[in-house]
Amino acid sequence: MSQKEIKIMQKILNVNDRIADDLRTEMSKKGIVYINLMSSPGSGKTKLLEKTAGAIRDKIFVIEGDIQTTLDAERLAAAGVGVYQINTGPFGGDCHLEAGWIRSALEEIELENVKYLFVENIGNLVCPAEFDVGAHINVVVLSVTEGEEKPLKYPLAFRNSQLCLISKTDLLPYLDIDLEMMKANMRKINPQIRIIELSAKSGQGIQDWLDFLAEYKT
Amino acid sequence: MSQKEIKIMQKILNVNDRIADDLRTEMSKKGIVYINLMSSPGSGKTKLLEKTAGAIRDKIFVIEGDIQTTLDAERLAAAGVGVYQINTGPFGGDCHLEAGWIRSALEEIELENVKYLFVENIGNLVCPAEFDVGAHINVVVLSVTEGEEKPLKYPLAFRNSQLCLISKTDLLPYLDIDLEMMKANMRKINPQIRIIELSAKSGQGIQDWLDFLAEYKT
Repeated sequence: MSQKEIKIMQKILNVNDRIADDLRTEMSKKGIVYINLMSSPGSGKTKLLEKTAGAIRDKIFVIEGDIQTTLDAERLAAAGVGVYQINTGPFGGDCHLEAGWIRSALEEIELENVKYLFVENIGNLVCPAEFDVGAHINVVVLSVTEGEEKPLKYPLAFRNSQLCLISKTDLLPYLDIDLEMMKANMRKINPQIRIIELSAKSGQGIQDWLDFLAEYKT
Repeated sequence: MSQKEIKIMQKILNVNDRIADDLRTEMSKKGIVYINLMSSPGSGKTKLLEKTAGAIRDKIFVIEGDIQTTLDAERLAAAGVGVYQINTGPFGGDCHLEAGWIRSALEEIELENVKYLFVENIGNLVCPAEFDVGAHINVVVLSVTEGEEKPLKYPLAFRNSQLCLISKTDLLPYLDIDLEMMKANMRKINPQIRIIELSAKSGQGIQDWLDFLAEYKT
């Protein structure tokens, strides 16, 4: 890449970071815990949100990021969750969400009584981690099917997250995967990262995730 | 995004497409079949290449794209495969490969007697599909663990591929997935797409993949 292109990217990132900081402050003032979920496609983010909405006493709202379709939003709406869809397809098929888009979305969203605001970012382990959406907590979801070396190969998502949810643990008996190595690789990239193993299918670890949310102070 | 940014992107894509066309012509002249493998992280691209190298009579070479690490390249080298690593980390952590980088890589690679040149693109179901790397065949790999709706949510990778390999079929007994719906969704996006179901672990479908390669005429 030429020097010129890198300069443009820096400018976009600076603007994004300012908006992100404003959003974080605004949500703190409202007492809303704001969580950004990032992962590869198919790690089970939507299913986790369905489970979370079903188990939690407090009101949640989800901003759903997808290139195309409202499939995930429809699943959440069917589960009674308030949801707002951002489709990046009409804007060139962007591979991530940006803070400015969240700010625009929030202008159309009623957050009264909402305790937890989730962003379900676009399924992509690379680009979303480059753009702060202003969340209090960045959560990276990594399915056990993806392999133990992923934190080393896609370090930014793990470096910029406070929590990793290792998902689909119900599949462990059928995989050749070293779970301890997966966790060691995460800690190599981010020694402070909190790790919860869970399965939305079997329910294992879901209570740990709910406890994590309940204990978080903005 | 402002109009200015879109203009820059178009310019990059035009340059990329010209280089890609040149690469395609060059490989055809050399009688080399050039294949670009795209997928989410952890779909099993590297394992498939290990299997392919072990089963094929002809010589293969792999250009390995990763943001960080040479882990996949090391696995292939250990399997006796000629391999060249492109790490995008030093260039801003780019989420895809571009034709110009492949051209630069090829200046350092000895392709004598090579019949199949593979690019293992960066694990990302979004961005790699936007950049033609000049391959004769774009192959999208989709693991059965990723869910049946992925072709609808990430259409470009399926629209721009001639073949989809549905991987990890050995896990089907443990998943709630409608494989026929997954294939129907692919065909909705790309009615011409060829589909092969396979498992590098069990060996199912590997012969179909080898036959596909053998039958391809540049």
